[in-house]
Amino acid sequence: MKNNEIINVRLSDDDNSVMILDQTLLPNETKYVELQNVDELHEAIYSLRVRGAPAIGIFAAYSLYVLAKQIKTEDFDEFFKSVMKYSEYLDTARPTAVNLSTQLRRMEDVVKNNNNLKISQILEAMREEAINIYNEDVEMCRVISEYGVKLLRDANASNGCKGILTQCNAGPIATSKYGTALVPILLGHEMGMKLRAYVCETRPLLQGARLTAYELDIAGVDTTLICDNMASVVMNEGKIHAVFAGCDRIASNGDVANKIGTNGLAILAKHYNIPFYVFGPTTTIDMNCATGADIEIELREPREIREMFYSKPMAPLDIKCYNPAFDVTPNSLITAIITEKGIHREGLKLV
Amino acid sequence: MKNNEIINVRLSDDDNSVMILDQTLLPNETKYVELQNVDELHEAIYSLRVRGAPAIGIFAAYSLYVLAKQIKTEDFDEFFKSVMKYSEYLDTARPTAVNLSTQLRRMEDVVKNNNNLKISQILEAMREEAINIYNEDVEMCRVISEYGVKLLRDANASNGCKGILTQCNAGPIATSKYGTALVPILLGHEMGMKLRAYVCETRPLLQGARLTAYELDIAGVDTTLICDNMASVVMNEGKIHAVFAGCDRIASNGDVANKIGTNGLAILAKHYNIPFYVFGPTTTIDMNCATGADIEIELREPREIREMFYSKPMAPLDIKCYNPAFDVTPNSLITAIITEKGIHREGLKLV
Repeated sequence: MKNNEIINVRLSDDDNSVMILDQTLLPNETKYVELQNVDELHEAIYSLRVRGAPAIGIFAAYSLYVLAKQIKTEDFDEFFKSVMKYSEYLDTARPTAVNLSTQLRRMEDVVKNNNNLKISQILEAMREEAINIYNEDVEMCRVISEYGVKLLRDANASNGCKGILTQCNAGPIATSKYGTALVPILLGHEMGMKLRAYVCETRPLLQGARLTAYELDIAGVDTTLICDNMASVVMNEGKIHAVFAGCDRIASNGDVANKIGTNGLAILAKHYNIPFYVFGPTTTIDMNCATGADIEIELREPREIREMFYSKPMAPLDIKCYNPAFDVTPNSLITAIITEKGIHREGLKLV
Repeated sequence: MKNNEIINVRLSDDDNSVMILDQTLLPNETKYVELQNVDELHEAIYSLRVRGAPAIGIFAAYSLYVLAKQIKTEDFDEFFKSVMKYSEYLDTARPTAVNLSTQLRRMEDVVKNNNNLKISQILEAMREEAINIYNEDVEMCRVISEYGVKLLRDANASNGCKGILTQCNAGPIATSKYGTALVPILLGHEMGMKLRAYVCETRPLLQGARLTAYELDIAGVDTTLICDNMASVVMNEGKIHAVFAGCDRIASNGDVANKIGTNGLAILAKHYNIPFYVFGPTTTIDMNCATGADIEIELREPREIREMFYSKPMAPLDIKCYNPAFDVTPNSLITAIITEKGIHREGLKLV
């Protein structure tokens, strides 16, 4: 894929910091920033400089390695205590995507399980684990993309051109390399399939307009941007043959937390009898969550709705705002969940 | 009502221009502008300086009177020809709300039906008709508000506080004085009812955030602003006991064209079993439209989605945008249409 050259999360050449493509500056500026201080690493997650459930997990793993290198001690207990402190702090940056805590736990376990090694050896093991996390995600997304292309092939479009609706961003920059919900479209386009992408802008942070439209544009896919409240119209006009969504946490019953707006799109898709597919690597599954009701939904600042991005406030500044960053789509509204293990049509039944 | 003092469309004191509250500047600036040139009158409608189906109709009537006064002739045919030219031009400013063309036709008829009078007398008759149009709307909206308060009383909220979801703006500034879908909330609040308003910001032009939140804020109503893609969440959380929407054109079968997003809200409301009410004076009914499919939907510029209001573009500038300003809600999704003639639960059956 043309734009899989963007590596949006990686270690710097000297291994002392994490390099990220600052996604808050897109589409106007393509700028990499180098982070090493714990507060700036935390802020990068909170401010969505790095975002997308898999990318956050990878970033957290690299971050914990970089922070661990800064701990000045040869004493294991002291080292472990400091690592845990950093890890717990990073974990508070965003609550909904499970990947953040899962990958931090994996990195903590590397430390725990190597308490017989020297600190320098533990650091080397942490580095390897972070790179494993990255590489595993590359491979999972690659496999997911193949299942996604199969779903595109199967999509039924009377006029031959398949319209896929997506929102937020589940593209290359949301993961290690390929993406999840977006990669089948990018790959299908490269394979010469006749596709048309419809992208919901995804308020309030506009990941659809700023990031997904940007990635599809670079790839040359026929793309139309709409406001979130126009999804029903394009569905009603017969332009949409499938909805492709990413996910931030999958409960064990197959309920899915994803970017705010996903649940509404799933209800509309059901109304119009359009298949609704959710894509995510199995790292996004949280078997400790029985149902979607157990998933913590991140509430963000009113400022993002009233003021952010605007040249002037667009609502009275004393007006209350409710700003949930995610919603939960019940499994009953999902046609299939696609992981690297397959296309799961009958509930979750995948782990 | 506290904020019914805002008269957002009226003749200037010298009768030579139309005064409007420039709604594009809200909520940051409350500024009245005085318009008399045909191009600036047309632009005021196109740019939504004046908006709301009833307000556009009133504005068009005043505008045609002001323009007719500028015609320098005593010859009826010449006068009539010039009036028609102005009228046809104003009519092109926005296609969806029927009130624009209906009220222009009424004003044209005044001229046609008085071809035996002197031009100065015709002008006087036009002035009277425009003021009639204004006064009739005041009365229709007043009656609608009473039906709306009855629906609020009937709304079933287990916790005693009734949550009403609305979008776009159907408040005082969308009409002559009182508003349609918003006035029951304003009035109910004044009467001491326990109410909570939820307002969808209404992309791309943010009439919900800029205008409805502003009007509710002035009135002291407990108001929460949400992004359009959050409606499903607040419905799912049990916060919404009814949806109140305005309308721009009602087809004779009871299908309703209203601000983009209405149709999606109606589908969500049906999914959650929440009543969905549409408010509009009978001037909004177009018996020449058999169904919603006959209503012309205004398509607006991509710029409104990609760039407008922002300090920087929020999407790649070469990305296509689809920007329908309205959508059609089939009558089957509407619990009742409320006009000044009553609460119509069984299809339209009202004229």
